[in-house]
Amino acid sequence: MIPLDPLIKSLSRLPGIGEKSATRLAIQIFRDTTGLAQDLIKSLVHITEKVVFCQKCQNISEQDICDICSDTSRNTHLLCVVQEPVDLMMIEKTSEYKGLYHVLHGAISPLDGIGPEDLRVRALIERVSNEDIQEVILATNPNPEGETTALYLKKLLSASNTAIKISRIASGIPVGGTLEYADPKTLARSLGYRRDF
Amino acid sequence: MIPLDPLIKSLSRLPGIGEKSATRLAIQIFRDTTGLAQDLIKSLVHITEKVVFCQKCQNISEQDICDICSDTSRNTHLLCVVQEPVDLMMIEKTSEYKGLYHVLHGAISPLDGIGPEDLRVRALIERVSNEDIQEVILATNPNPEGETTALYLKKLLSASNTAIKISRIASGIPVGGTLEYADPKTLARSLGYRRDF
Repeated sequence: MIPLDPLIKSLSRLPGIGEKSATRLAIQIFRDTTGLAQDLIKSLVHITEKVVFCQKCQNISEQDICDICSDTSRNTHLLCVVQEPVDLMMIEKTSEYKGLYHVLHGAISPLDGIGPEDLRVRALIERVSNEDIQEVILATNPNPEGETTALYLKKLLSASNTAIKISRIASGIPVGGTLEYADPKTLARSLGYRRDF
Repeated sequence: MIPLDPLIKSLSRLPGIGEKSATRLAIQIFRDTTGLAQDLIKSLVHITEKVVFCQKCQNISEQDICDICSDTSRNTHLLCVVQEPVDLMMIEKTSEYKGLYHVLHGAISPLDGIGPEDLRVRALIERVSNEDIQEVILATNPNPEGETTALYLKKLLSASNTAIKISRIASGIPVGGTLEYADPKTLARSLGYRRDF
């Protein structure tokens, strides 16, 4: 395997890929005859040279200001805070949200050594101070890390701008789901978030 | 995600990596600040430019003839046939085998559309004809594909060289294992392969 060692080592650095998987992948890439290695090189060069973080929302972008931030048809008073670029993508797929976004690139997780300073929090506070934002929707995950992050941001945002409205996405029984199979915490949250009908 | 799309598409081409995993990996590679993308590019360029198949044993090598094939201290009368480069590596780790190898790069699997013509079989037959090989050890996996391949090679090798000895690696209870937890087929094979003691 020695000739493939550098590639195996690089691939092992990817999250969730151990040495065995990396070895298997390296052999497959080497054995491939359809230009997979060239494709990977080209696309990796592309991200190192052309892809940046949007200076406003911190999402992944090919321009300094991304398409969403520069879209004048969107509601610039509404800001949705998400953990990951993929969360933004999922919300965009619903076609229900027309405001702006802010991507934190993670959540507070003391066990993993991730604190607020590792997230794009300062940029968020600056935006809330400088832009005319009326409501911040905290759309971090409803799990311990996401909840901690939401609580932390609520405190920070309230302190920096008392006029701002802060909201949190709802948790509850998924659409199409049944109470029978819901876990107790979700069911309790679903009751707590009940609304007039 | 559009800026990362080319990379996500390339990564999705890797075996066992779907679109969701590819997206996660692409974001991690982009977000990494320790030179992971550069590392991957360098090692991919290395395998496309410097790594080849050994012209004799078909193993992955940085020379036309690999270190094992050119090692004059090895027993050139003994040839061990394996499915994958990783199998060769595992046998080398035992330090018990001092003969040569031949790597097939796969096994016959009609369900996956893999026939003998997709494997390095012709090169094997040529070696057996041209080199002074006295015994071929068929070390393909003891699973349906590996067994089929072993049977196919036995027939082919016997036909091309009647003097050659053909052997097959033993199956049985793993060292440290117990009969109680062995599956019936392994136990039957272990009895069938019994030897004087």
